[in-house]
Amino acid sequence: MSLEPLLNPRSIAMIGASDKAGRIGGMPLELLSHFGFAGEVYPVNPKYAEVFGYRCYAQVEDLPAVPDLAVLAIGARDVTAMLRRCHAVGIRAAVVYAAGFAEEGAAGLLLQQELVQFCKESGMQVAGPNCMGLANLNTRAFTAFAAIFKTASMQSDTGCVSVLTQSGNVCSALYGLVRAQDLPVSHFINTGNEATVDFAQYLEYLAEDAQTEIVLGYVEQIRDGRRFIDACRRFQAQGKVLVVLKAGVTEKGAVAVQSHTSALAGDQKIYEAAFRDLNVIAADDFAQMANIAMLARLRHRTAGARIGVVTMSGALGAILTDRFIQAGLQLPDLPADVQAQLRQGIPAYGMVGNPVDVTGNIVNDPQFIVQVLQALAVTPALDTVVINAPGYMLDRMAQPLIEVVQKYPRLFVAIDTGNASCRDALREAGVAVFDDLGHAVRALGPFLTWQQRRGQWTAPVDDTCDGHAQIDVQPVAGRTNTASSHARVDVPSLPCHEGDARRYLAGFGLPDPDVHIAGTREEAAALADQLGVPLAMKVVSADLAHKTEAGGVLLNITGAQAAAQAYEQILENCRGYQPDAAIAGVMITPMQQGVAELLVGATRDPVFGPVLTVALGGIMTEIYRDTAHALLPVTHGEAVQLLRSLKAFALLDGFRGRPRADVDAAAQAMVAVGQAFVAGQPVLDQIEINPLLVRQAGSGVAMLDALLIADTAALASVVQG
Amino acid sequence: MSLEPLLNPRSIAMIGASDKAGRIGGMPLELLSHFGFAGEVYPVNPKYAEVFGYRCYAQVEDLPAVPDLAVLAIGARDVTAMLRRCHAVGIRAAVVYAAGFAEEGAAGLLLQQELVQFCKESGMQVAGPNCMGLANLNTRAFTAFAAIFKTASMQSDTGCVSVLTQSGNVCSALYGLVRAQDLPVSHFINTGNEATVDFAQYLEYLAEDAQTEIVLGYVEQIRDGRRFIDACRRFQAQGKVLVVLKAGVTEKGAVAVQSHTSALAGDQKIYEAAFRDLNVIAADDFAQMANIAMLARLRHRTAGARIGVVTMSGALGAILTDRFIQAGLQLPDLPADVQAQLRQGIPAYGMVGNPVDVTGNIVNDPQFIVQVLQALAVTPALDTVVINAPGYMLDRMAQPLIEVVQKYPRLFVAIDTGNASCRDALREAGVAVFDDLGHAVRALGPFLTWQQRRGQWTAPVDDTCDGHAQIDVQPVAGRTNTASSHARVDVPSLPCHEGDARRYLAGFGLPDPDVHIAGTREEAAALADQLGVPLAMKVVSADLAHKTEAGGVLLNITGAQAAAQAYEQILENCRGYQPDAAIAGVMITPMQQGVAELLVGATRDPVFGPVLTVALGGIMTEIYRDTAHALLPVTHGEAVQLLRSLKAFALLDGFRGRPRADVDAAAQAMVAVGQAFVAGQPVLDQIEINPLLVRQAGSGVAMLDALLIADTAALASVVQG
Repeated sequence: MSLEPLLNPRSIAMIGASDKAGRIGGMPLELLSHFGFAGEVYPVNPKYAEVFGYRCYAQVEDLPAVPDLAVLAIGARDVTAMLRRCHAVGIRAAVVYAAGFAEEGAAGLLLQQELVQFCKESGMQVAGPNCMGLANLNTRAFTAFAAIFKTASMQSDTGCVSVLTQSGNVCSALYGLVRAQDLPVSHFINTGNEATVDFAQYLEYLAEDAQTEIVLGYVEQIRDGRRFIDACRRFQAQGKVLVVLKAGVTEKGAVAVQSHTSALAGDQKIYEAAFRDLNVIAADDFAQMANIAMLARLRHRTAGARIGVVTMSGALGAILTDRFIQAGLQLPDLPADVQAQLRQGIPAYGMVGNPVDVTGNIVNDPQFIVQVLQALAVTPALDTVVINAPGYMLDRMAQPLIEVVQKYPRLFVAIDTGNASCRDALREAGVAVFDDLGHAVRALGPFLTWQQRRGQWTAPVDDTCDGHAQIDVQPVAGRTNTASSHARVDVPSLPCHEGDARRYLAGFGLPDPDVHIAGTREEAAALADQLGVPLAMKVVSADLAHKTEAGGVLLNITGAQAAAQAYEQILENCRGYQPDAAIAGVMITPMQQGVAELLVGATRDPVFGPVLTVALGGIMTEIYRDTAHALLPVTHGEAVQLLRSLKAFALLDGFRGRPRADVDAAAQAMVAVGQAFVAGQPVLDQIEINPLLVRQAGSGVAMLDALLIADTAALASVVQG
Repeated sequence: MSLEPLLNPRSIAMIGASDKAGRIGGMPLELLSHFGFAGEVYPVNPKYAEVFGYRCYAQVEDLPAVPDLAVLAIGARDVTAMLRRCHAVGIRAAVVYAAGFAEEGAAGLLLQQELVQFCKESGMQVAGPNCMGLANLNTRAFTAFAAIFKTASMQSDTGCVSVLTQSGNVCSALYGLVRAQDLPVSHFINTGNEATVDFAQYLEYLAEDAQTEIVLGYVEQIRDGRRFIDACRRFQAQGKVLVVLKAGVTEKGAVAVQSHTSALAGDQKIYEAAFRDLNVIAADDFAQMANIAMLARLRHRTAGARIGVVTMSGALGAILTDRFIQAGLQLPDLPADVQAQLRQGIPAYGMVGNPVDVTGNIVNDPQFIVQVLQALAVTPALDTVVINAPGYMLDRMAQPLIEVVQKYPRLFVAIDTGNASCRDALREAGVAVFDDLGHAVRALGPFLTWQQRRGQWTAPVDDTCDGHAQIDVQPVAGRTNTASSHARVDVPSLPCHEGDARRYLAGFGLPDPDVHIAGTREEAAALADQLGVPLAMKVVSADLAHKTEAGGVLLNITGAQAAAQAYEQILENCRGYQPDAAIAGVMITPMQQGVAELLVGATRDPVFGPVLTVALGGIMTEIYRDTAHALLPVTHGEAVQLLRSLKAFALLDGFRGRPRADVDAAAQAMVAVGQAFVAGQPVLDQIEINPLLVRQAGSGVAMLDALLIADTAALASVVQG
């Protein structure tokens, strides 16, 4: 169902109209009148004959025509009854300001359920409740009681930036800063309680909205993760930019979010991973968001993470270098031929590598400045050029800079450390201008990363997270491999013991080392004789979650006699630990040596669905919180990137003369875990291989432990269904 | 020698004067004239009779009186000759603009040496060379050719912020942003090549300068670390604020610094530690520095890291909570009685914990707003109060806020997310006002940390880093302790083997486990018999730096026969590795068990002098760069803080049910290492205990390896002296 009546209404009824601009029933009418909304406006209130120049009607039933949209400035208790009356006269959409719904305890929740029920039955579309309202700045359709429209300057251009937030105050604050940047706004949307229309649904609309190119969003909780993911992909497909500030990234912040809405803040690490995978720009504050929007308007220019810096001062070059590198960008050395070209005009005490210090004298030679900028505009070593200069020097460079910018598509950014008079002219020519390097870096860091990823982005194939799907299973390199290609493996009945878990995972190509399960002490002794190497022995039981704590794991066992003793010991320990645990035997494997041990797991996030996790195994990863996540499915390349994003990747990569690990096989194993998890939906809640042994390059990986956990709710419904 | 003639001249000669304001010899004259410097001004240039209204003299010898200061706007080659002439007529201080000295190769270095030599002989004081000049804004004494003085608004108030930088362009950029905040400036100083007056010397002057309360500094390299440390302590003692941006914090940034000056960037981690220990605020960009200066003017108000947040919006409260916590600040829950008091006026859907969401309706009740603000102004649970409100709501709160601020000393900060008209009135009343939460957090984080530390700061006793000093040696808790109190230990002759290193360190109270050195295989066997536990055996040799690589370490050796074999093996390995190494025997110690292993070391930083380093031992600390440093000497409390600052501290602190480590003994060992290092000056270059075994709480620590490294230069001078 289209959101046109909410976001682009041609006629508006204001129910509970007031003739005071300071009241919520008056302010939108005053805005509509003041800014000249071209459509029909129908105030409704028996007290008035006219408000703000509009004829006022006693009740909604009196309106001369059916408006696209009703705005309800009335108390929570009266809302649903009024919606019924609106619907009865033919109105199909409404904005509800009233607080006192789900955010306010049990009584409010009942009111909201009543409202939702009515909307379901009637098909009526309701924004809010508990919202500040909406505004379409292009048509001047104001249905929001936001004072900021009067204190900020009103735009004359067609809007291209939309503000979409889960808070009215944040919507206003963002709008104010966007307008302070002189950026024109398309839609002003705050979602309130999202009783019938949620954040993702608005986002979907904005993805298709012809005016909206850039969305600045504020999110506490995403209710429909699937729809959000789809909308983000549409943004990517159309080259639109989505910038989101997510609240609740710290524990205390999450508590603050929960106390003011009924929403759960969700797992911050998963949000980060999802935003990265969906190329959503994560922001920290509103001024930064407005600056990113300013850059995003220049996204038709070519740009990326490799920056060339031009200064008139080595110090400014050094500071910018520090800040850009800390922001995850790069300052590659310029190629020798470019350096030689620059050196023709730059004195010895200047710098030609990168940052380039052209020195103060040079700005008096516009011809040479053009040559410098041109060289930086075309060298394939760079993606983006940043010029940092005192105002009066920037003024002298302005004309050469504009010439070059008009000729070449590369993004140029200026940082004016004085008060240059050329700022407007530069902006007009398509140069982003900042007044401080800090502001520049905080906007360029995320924006250029977006540009970089945008170039690498390809439309994903329809993914298969929602159920059993046919997946191509590639065998994973390893010492042993019991799976054939294109195997189709059924999830074992859960809970299952480790042997079954291994078999399931091996079916997706995960290499399983020689595994033997001894059922008696004699079998244990015989296996030890047969294998003839130090052994690991571990209890096999679906009932024992913590095998080490149960005394169910013994290592470095050599010889038949020791193995027989270990068998007895393990059984005795486990029976002592949990007498009723069903024990299927004791698993015996040769002790394994590798370069590193990883934790590879898959879980289902309540918002984003199936997610892969990888970390270095062991206690240190917990201490340093060094984990990486990605939405499933992942490709082999993405799995490698995920491994590389771990700080501990150095350990896999030949740190201090250690052998390099088989990163390729580890990535293949990660892909396979993802496939096994997706194929196991909906009954699988979790897969965990901890550890996955990674041997040296070329020698593959091995599961040293494997665990499948059931989704008990899904299991129950499978059983019942 | 006082810097008065440079920084507060009553008369100024401009040598190489120009009548063009765009030339470096003209611009300062134009500024002096335009802004009405009250002292004498003597342009010197045979070409003119008068410039900018000042009578011009043909040569310096013609001046009617001796000026305090000569400014040389002439080429590098002519500088020293002109300084001689200036000195001959009685001038005692000069500013030299010219580039082409040490920063420009061998020829320039010779010119600078000539200049330095003349200054040494004559006692003349020279700012620069290669600088933009100086300005005293309070007397309007402009000796800088900086265009920013004309484009930024000129202050009418007495200046209190001084700008002190190692770059003229940075000085201008900072000045511009400070003035944009309407803060009045005292001194404008850029130091150039620091041939005779360095950064620390200017800082020393500003520490005593009656006008200067706040210094914004930019540093690439500190040349006189001892003087810098002293100046920073004077800032602390007088409650002045020093904010420094240090360039070269990334590898690439350090390269950029090095190529544009001849300076080495130094070790960033040590700079960070020194700034923390000296309570210098480290900044990232100029806008942040100007905002910190704005806060620093309010430093007479009580403030600290525990923030109470007041909003009219749960969302803004949640975002601020996230950002403040990420900035290292705290939002403690309000006490129950305060919450109860707030709840009397805040509806159920508002929040009274912290952040406080008073909700939008409340601002219409100024009486209640006063009550809320008053409660937050007096509760001992908070140090600082931050109010975030849309402009029109802030306006309604302004009067109550001003009332409370005038009555209570606590710092109040407002973040205006609209365009409030009360901003100036609030500032006048002593409220800091920000236009975005991002800007507020980036300034409040470091400033409130400064306030917090300032409260904890006590004047240090004269430290003893420069030589042998009498130090109170406290015995360190441990299983064995061979040192008595107040021991006085001589540094062994270096290089020394581990046995001597241990004896030296034990003299400072470091516990040394049972150490025995076997000189024959028979002795090794006898010791093994006698000790009767698994042993560690390690070669003792001053010549073998890498004992493990040499095969000189064998572990877990049990029994006499094995010990004898190990003895032979170690000798064979080491002789094969380095045939000429002198071997004093094989050290035999019982294998030790502990909770964690630390690296504890001391080194001498070229800038800051003796520095202590602590890290978790082993490979993971290198991977995660988890190390902590402090200037020596450190107290026991500082050592504990240093340990707590490690991410790996969790491992010492009972992580996941592990025993808690003896943090107290580890801290005592750190203090002792510091004392041993300071006492060993100047011949000791480095002490390293790696690892220091930390046993569980109450069971002390033990050195498992100990190393002393000589300063070869100091050794040579000791030998020669």
